[in-house]
Amino acid sequence: MITIGTVLFEGFELLDVFGPLELFGMLDAKVKLVMIAEQEGPVRSNQGPATLADFGMRGVQGLDVLMVPGGMGTRREVANPPFLEDLARVAQDSVYAASVCTGSALLARAGLLDGKRATSNKRAFEWVKTQGPRVNWVAEARWVEDGKFFTSSGVSAGMDMTLGLIERLFDRATSVAIANRAEYEWHSDKSWDPFAKLNGLV
Amino acid sequence: MITIGTVLFEGFELLDVFGPLELFGMLDAKVKLVMIAEQEGPVRSNQGPATLADFGMRGVQGLDVLMVPGGMGTRREVANPPFLEDLARVAQDSVYAASVCTGSALLARAGLLDGKRATSNKRAFEWVKTQGPRVNWVAEARWVEDGKFFTSSGVSAGMDMTLGLIERLFDRATSVAIANRAEYEWHSDKSWDPFAKLNGLV
Repeated sequence: MITIGTVLFEGFELLDVFGPLELFGMLDAKVKLVMIAEQEGPVRSNQGPATLADFGMRGVQGLDVLMVPGGMGTRREVANPPFLEDLARVAQDSVYAASVCTGSALLARAGLLDGKRATSNKRAFEWVKTQGPRVNWVAEARWVEDGKFFTSSGVSAGMDMTLGLIERLFDRATSVAIANRAEYEWHSDKSWDPFAKLNGLV
Repeated sequence: MITIGTVLFEGFELLDVFGPLELFGMLDAKVKLVMIAEQEGPVRSNQGPATLADFGMRGVQGLDVLMVPGGMGTRREVANPPFLEDLARVAQDSVYAASVCTGSALLARAGLLDGKRATSNKRAFEWVKTQGPRVNWVAEARWVEDGKFFTSSGVSAGMDMTLGLIERLFDRATSVAIANRAEYEWHSDKSWDPFAKLNGLV
């Protein structure tokens, strides 16, 4: 049994959270999904719909995977030291820590990516870079792995990264089976990224 | 301004709801997303995380699009006449009605798809067919359009269908711009469906 914890904050991006959780959820009895936030209770997404946080961050430890979404709320949370301190503690204590989209700005501001390779949303890339001047930002990548840290490009890229993480946790056959069950065409090549070019980053 | 209403029920599939809503949400000021259920309040997904329903179905009318997800909860709701009656009323009153995955079993049981073409999840296809004996079920399709009804294949297919629906509501350039912003490779060909073969349906 592995435990996946997802951090929520006001203004999180819906697919950044629920694309990965859909795929992790297909591990069935092998997985437990927990939703965490600064305080437990409903948290509004960037798009409007609200999701319940089951636990406050203070009480969380020992996750197998910490998932950090992006969304417009990251613009506020990069300047929220108590949130970043809790995020750093939970991430350091997790076996893996992964971000989708501008979630990598939060990991960067929490000091977790210094000296590491990472990527982010292609439209917000210049802003994200300013949040982590000591991070080796990779412009062209569907997702980047550096040790325990996985960071993905924007929004839908989180699903491809998640299948890469499931491959690391289990094996490739498990990821392929889950992609098929979700009727999802997995971009399993980490270097596939037409959106870097489209946004003038390469 | 268009209003998208999504029906929630215990055991809904996460990506069936939030893949489409992510893409509709990128219409920004042109769209309002409302979450509805038999009663307002938190509704647990098939995977565990709970989402808040903002409105009970009884009070809902005049939607531009009604979205109906699938998930294991459909097995219960196909035998819930009050839910199906409310669903039929809201769908008949909406400009468009769309389902993802086994959500088409609910539209079928509500009597909305009789004599129409529709599709569904490929692993659950035989069960879904039993829920709508007078529906013209199409085994091989990413999604199917018949008048105001859009029905998609399993889970991730809902995102491709949603971009097709946005094309109908606005234009193709809008759908392409949203796919690019979500860093999503849109399968814009409704007939693309490798999962029908994979599951022995064709």
